[in-house]
Amino acid sequence: MISSNNLFKRKYGVTVQQQINRQILLVKRPIGIPDESCFKLITSAISQPTHGQVLLRTRFLSVDPYMRGRMNDRRSYVPPFQLNEVLNGGIVGEIVESNSNNFAKGDFVVGNLGWQDYSIAGEKEVRKINSEIAPVSTALGVLGMPGLTAYFGLLDIGKPKQGETVIVSGAAGAVGTIVGQIAKIHGCRVVGIAGSDKKTKYLIDELGFNIAINYKTVPHLRKALKEACPDGVDIYFDNVGGDISDAVISLINKYARIPLCGQISLYNEEQISMGPRLQPRLLTFSAIMQGFIVHNYENRFDEGIQQLAKWLTDKKLKYAENVVEGLENAPGAFIGLFAGENLGKQLVKVA
Amino acid sequence: MISSNNLFKRKYGVTVQQQINRQILLVKRPIGIPDESCFKLITSAISQPTHGQVLLRTRFLSVDPYMRGRMNDRRSYVPPFQLNEVLNGGIVGEIVESNSNNFAKGDFVVGNLGWQDYSIAGEKEVRKINSEIAPVSTALGVLGMPGLTAYFGLLDIGKPKQGETVIVSGAAGAVGTIVGQIAKIHGCRVVGIAGSDKKTKYLIDELGFNIAINYKTVPHLRKALKEACPDGVDIYFDNVGGDISDAVISLINKYARIPLCGQISLYNEEQISMGPRLQPRLLTFSAIMQGFIVHNYENRFDEGIQQLAKWLTDKKLKYAENVVEGLENAPGAFIGLFAGENLGKQLVKVA
Repeated sequence: MISSNNLFKRKYGVTVQQQINRQILLVKRPIGIPDESCFKLITSAISQPTHGQVLLRTRFLSVDPYMRGRMNDRRSYVPPFQLNEVLNGGIVGEIVESNSNNFAKGDFVVGNLGWQDYSIAGEKEVRKINSEIAPVSTALGVLGMPGLTAYFGLLDIGKPKQGETVIVSGAAGAVGTIVGQIAKIHGCRVVGIAGSDKKTKYLIDELGFNIAINYKTVPHLRKALKEACPDGVDIYFDNVGGDISDAVISLINKYARIPLCGQISLYNEEQISMGPRLQPRLLTFSAIMQGFIVHNYENRFDEGIQQLAKWLTDKKLKYAENVVEGLENAPGAFIGLFAGENLGKQLVKVA
Repeated sequence: MISSNNLFKRKYGVTVQQQINRQILLVKRPIGIPDESCFKLITSAISQPTHGQVLLRTRFLSVDPYMRGRMNDRRSYVPPFQLNEVLNGGIVGEIVESNSNNFAKGDFVVGNLGWQDYSIAGEKEVRKINSEIAPVSTALGVLGMPGLTAYFGLLDIGKPKQGETVIVSGAAGAVGTIVGQIAKIHGCRVVGIAGSDKKTKYLIDELGFNIAINYKTVPHLRKALKEACPDGVDIYFDNVGGDISDAVISLINKYARIPLCGQISLYNEEQISMGPRLQPRLLTFSAIMQGFIVHNYENRFDEGIQQLAKWLTDKKLKYAENVVEGLENAPGAFIGLFAGENLGKQLVKVA
């Protein structure tokens, strides 16, 4: 090991500590809310990129609610994580060695890669980031999957029209913050539901939401929503599911659209959750409820990124990041999602 | 009264008995399943049509599940029936006197009118029926609202594609029978769910459904549906809601479409019915659930009627009617809908 470490040191000029590739494994499938015992940090050697591959050093990794579903051994839209293997998700990395003509040392890239210090990636597995538009971390947030999720879910399914009322749940999260702002850009009245006064204040003061409601402290959510939406609800962008969604859906207008983006309130349930049947209301109000994942729109990602970047440079869009330092803290950051700790995009800064 | 009866007799050549206008009122809002005590038959005089109006004699009246909702004093897509007023719905009538240039005595028309022997209608309230295509009763079934409901719900929301699997609940009803046949015309595999062996036999033998399941006798509905749909479910045309829908929705494929047409299993519930939350499944499978009522497509009714009539004359579409005789039996025919007594369109022959 010493000799390979030294080789590594000579090649990349990094310290001995950094030569070790730390990796985070899923070692136990969570029951209910995950805890630290589900994860294990190990170390391994760093591989070398072969032809067409790059070696990259992880700068940021993304923790996302949907990953909870992958921790179950259950059929879903992405295959489950395998036990005792490295977790994976959105990663921003800097290329430290390239055997590809498409990438050079120092390039920043984004891709779906392991929770580890160093990754080998094929040249088609990563996409170069234009770091002149915004900090590279935004490739995991407003200019990445969460931004695209907000963009396609709201515009393609929600179809906002001037003057309509939009409710967003999980409004202070990575997706919700962008949904609300895009709805404002389209001339809608926007009501956000979030879990702390700090968040609701941010939504109103910084992002221009018309109203934001702290569902944890409001005495009667449905009543508060009804007051907040005197003209009813035309679009409900749902990130959370459960009781909050029941309250919103009881207020929909004719031809309402309900993009289903996430159901974070249910991800840790072991049983199928029961609730009031929705079909009678959807029927009566000729409403649409549509599930989606951002990958359905893969062939339109360029359009989405370009528009989001334009709004960003035009100062029509703001973003928030909640950054935890250290790969070893990635499990904690992930677990924190379910306590609603993050305002904006939850990231882990790895190096 | 004698003199006006005699006048009536002279004018229209009908018997004394028929001169009386019998009317059926809603006199009590039902709790749960309606019974006969909610209805009352009264008699009244026959009015005279003024300028632009017609007097018509009811030939057929339509009883439909959606009417149950109107019997509650509750906001919905149509206003509630008023107590002690004449019930109304789809009527086929023959014009016995016309003060409109658009209609002549002997014309058959369809419109939304009262449950009574004779009605006065404005010339825009009724539409002339072409009795050469099919018997006039079809204006309340395959060439009327149920046919149009099937047509727009399946084609506009369901968007059937060759080779896809379509499940229809309430399959032997006025809408379900047409949905299944239109799906067959579009090259789909069609599975019907109905409530008697007579119905399932009819669906397979007469209408060409691939499989039909009697939900009342099948030991395990979900298992039977799974076997019936080896490639999963692409479209679920839902007329019934409740447990049957839960079973179907657990089998949907990615990008499934679920037109919500009716929820007959829930119409008599006094409490909001509880069931497994659907959003996680709709989300995972990027599925669409969309409520609709046929009136949303009003500006395309001509297209729908023309196409349905063409399929009918081309023998691609069959229809069934379940006819009860006598206005006084309309309440019973309506109540029978909830026991699933009807195969095809439930009609009441009034004269």
